[in-house]
Amino acid sequence: MKVISSYDMTGQPVAEEGASDVSIRWLISRPEGAPNFAMRLFELAPGGYTPLHTHAWEHEAFILEGAGEITTAAGPVAVTAGDAVYVAPEDLHQFRNAGDAVMKMLCMIPLPKEG
Amino acid sequence: MKVISSYDMTGQPVAEEGASDVSIRWLISRPEGAPNFAMRLFELAPGGYTPLHTHAWEHEAFILEGAGEITTAAGPVAVTAGDAVYVAPEDLHQFRNAGDAVMKMLCMIPLPKEG
Repeated sequence: MKVISSYDMTGQPVAEEGASDVSIRWLISRPEGAPNFAMRLFELAPGGYTPLHTHAWEHEAFILEGAGEITTAAGPVAVTAGDAVYVAPEDLHQFRNAGDAVMKMLCMIPLPKEG
Repeated sequence: MKVISSYDMTGQPVAEEGASDVSIRWLISRPEGAPNFAMRLFELAPGGYTPLHTHAWEHEAFILEGAGEITTAAGPVAVTAGDAVYVAPEDLHQFRNAGDAVMKMLCMIPLPKEG
């Protein structure tokens, strides 16, 4: 059993093309022993956003603080603290901080199978 | 893409033997299309606890509000809001609300493979 304090970690800037003013903390992944999926914490500064993209794996996200907007193929969708978000494989998506405060969210992804 | 508001859902009491004053909301699972893992939100009333047990799958938890204690084979471990918790497969564990306020936590588990 391992406890990882998100407050004790420093967020790393997300350098991926198409991202702006976003940091990531990897809370639980392979180094902690996770066999199936990883937990990351993202912070989006006001106006910050993740890339507008698609990929073959799902996201399961939870908005911890703040408010935002998700760009989808069907248009923008508002989200706020307390919302869970399921992004299916190949769904177009982009998270944007639409508020004046930092937006914090957890985002879980499956890990590649080992071996 | 689906947004599930945890505030719009009613928690269901956890009736499992060994649990006390705990409710569960299934936020993301098979009905939402999740292929690999599920997201649940637990609320533990002051003094509430989950069963002391082991099982073959891991937990990835995140303390959203409140403070608690995890009973482990090595003794109790304090946790508080902002902590991520990795419980490995077969680790003995029990979550307890050690505070005066409701303790809220997300807990993710792998889903059985389909097909």
